Amino acid sequence: MRLATVVTAAGEIPAAILPSPDGERALALDGVLPGGTTVTDVLGNALLATLVADEIAASDAMTLPLVDDLRLAPPVRPSKIVCVGYNYRWHNPDGGSDADPDPTFPDIFVKTQNTVRGADDLIEVPRASLDVDYEGEVAVVVGRRMKDVPEADTMSYVGGFAVFNDITDREWQRRTSQWAVGKNFDGFGQLGPVVVTPDEVGDPGDLLVEVERDGLVTVSQSTSTWVFPLPRLLAHLSSVWTLEPGDVIATGSPQKLPGVHATHRPLVAGDAVTITVTGLGSLTTRFVAPETTRVPSPSEAAASEASPSATAPPDPSTA
Amino acid sequence: MRLATVVTAAGEIPAAILPSPDGERALALDGVLPGGTTVTDVLGNALLATLVADEIAASDAMTLPLVDDLRLAPPVRPSKIVCVGYNYRWHNPDGGSDADPDPTFPDIFVKTQNTVRGADDLIEVPRASLDVDYEGEVAVVVGRRMKDVPEADTMSYVGGFAVFNDITDREWQRRTSQWAVGKNFDGFGQLGPVVVTPDEVGDPGDLLVEVERDGLVTVSQSTSTWVFPLPRLLAHLSSVWTLEPGDVIATGSPQKLPGVHATHRPLVAGDAVTITVTGLGSLTTRFVAPETTRVPSPSEAAASEASPSATAPPDPSTA
Repeated sequence: MRLATVVTAAGEIPAAILPSPDGERALALDGVLPGGTTVTDVLGNALLATLVADEIAASDAMTLPLVDDLRLAPPVRPSKIVCVGYNYRWHNPDGGSDADPDPTFPDIFVKTQNTVRGADDLIEVPRASLDVDYEGEVAVVVGRRMKDVPEADTMSYVGGFAVFNDITDREWQRRTSQWAVGKNFDGFGQLGPVVVTPDEVGDPGDLLVEVERDGLVTVSQSTSTWVFPLPRLLAHLSSVWTLEPGDVIATGSPQKLPGVHATHRPLVAGDAVTITVTGLGSLTTRFVAPETTRVPSPSEAAASEASPSATAPPDPSTA
Repeated sequence: MRLATVVTAAGEIPAAILPSPDGERALALDGVLPGGTTVTDVLGNALLATLVADEIAASDAMTLPLVDDLRLAPPVRPSKIVCVGYNYRWHNPDGGSDADPDPTFPDIFVKTQNTVRGADDLIEVPRASLDVDYEGEVAVVVGRRMKDVPEADTMSYVGGFAVFNDITDREWQRRTSQWAVGKNFDGFGQLGPVVVTPDEVGDPGDLLVEVERDGLVTVSQSTSTWVFPLPRLLAHLSSVWTLEPGDVIATGSPQKLPGVHATHRPLVAGDAVTITVTGLGSLTTRFVAPETTRVPSPSEAAASEASPSATAPPDPSTA
């Protein structure tokens, strides 16, 4: 099944995404699932998934709203995004060559929660950015908590797969040995539009990842050229982190096609790129100028602290 | 003021830590603050802080429980920990020398939520670890949400300071270009025992950081040797991340004293190190063997999914 999180007036609700002759349609699941259930909950719980499957079987897609008329939030809200660098053959580190042997260990970095956006979120080009670039990737969404899981058992912990844009500021990335600043500007991790469950994806090691920018295909490479097979990668990561339900593993970016680097131009407001992965759908990233509002100055903040809202008790449910 | 989070039968509650002739004592704040208020809330809200100050003024420390008889949780629960490498002069990258000029940009990496532990938590030596080491640091705790804050305004966003142990597996860190795996094993970020508010700390750029291991002082260096003054560092980070209340900035680790590297031995179960920072107190990290329990196998998990608890509706407050 294909699951999304839809923004409604009453908040974000989980939905199943169904095909129809004139476009995908969304089956709201807030009526059939217990209150507060998220897509992450469904991915990790076979009974909830059965409820969803039954609801899909009983529904008539043509009576449902078109996805194009809805707003999709990130399908899940990861507590962390763990990413792999150089996981496709022929995507070599600076100074490397195709003749180099595969690396012994995957090169891992982290994206934080502030990066997460959904398919219908516009991505602000950060004020401080210098050279914004895209990376089209396959994201693994963790279904059940995993720690120290042997390689042979890892795939049973996977809740699903999604398209991911590992947006990166190349100039910030190059400035220092660690990539964290170039990778972690607000909004630099777009995920979606949906999470597709493993039964529908088939072999995650045989998916074509394509990126289109300005009408040109700039990336086209299969996950069959992954350096680290997914079970090996997941076992490696779970020996370090406890991976929580909804956490995302971004499996790395293919090299851009020959000639694309030569015409590289930093992404700016008005630009868009579309990532398409076999079976996972297409994710279009639209860049806009940063909001004109900013964090208030200390004097502005002092004024707002005198307002009634600042004196209200904190909401325990968010504390 | 000095604030801590205390573990009680009813959950974690904020407390003010007060001196007394026979040791520090804890003033529980759950009665005076609105329900669900956390230390993070107090750090970011002048009115809540005034309530706490009034309660401290009205209390008799000698009637309060000794901190040594309580269990301290992490004082705050950061959504991310943003860390600086090489922020002390004479702590050079591999291959660097004291004659090298200061770096132009701070080298930044991230620790994720799974690393966070409090002063009374025992730190498990991970099963997969190879060479566990400590790093004694000054942590900045963000008081109010900050993004794109000019250098001159940054310090008004600081909620407080704490001692931090940036625990690191050196072998995992060395294996790849990015340090994330070596830095992010569960429990590798111990914070506490308390958060001290800026008014009580004075100049954060004039604190002595000392570490003691096996009766020897292995680190002793002042934050006056920081490469990046704190306002500059905070402005830099806030141009990338929206820093949330309770987020932690770990300001880097001093070089170990001469001779210490030569006698380095990986930390193992039974080892302890103590970090002391002027005005912030002492944090002792105690290492233990990993739990013998582990994540259930798929067959075990299938059995537990058939149990009634797996069918209970999710709790909306945690969804």
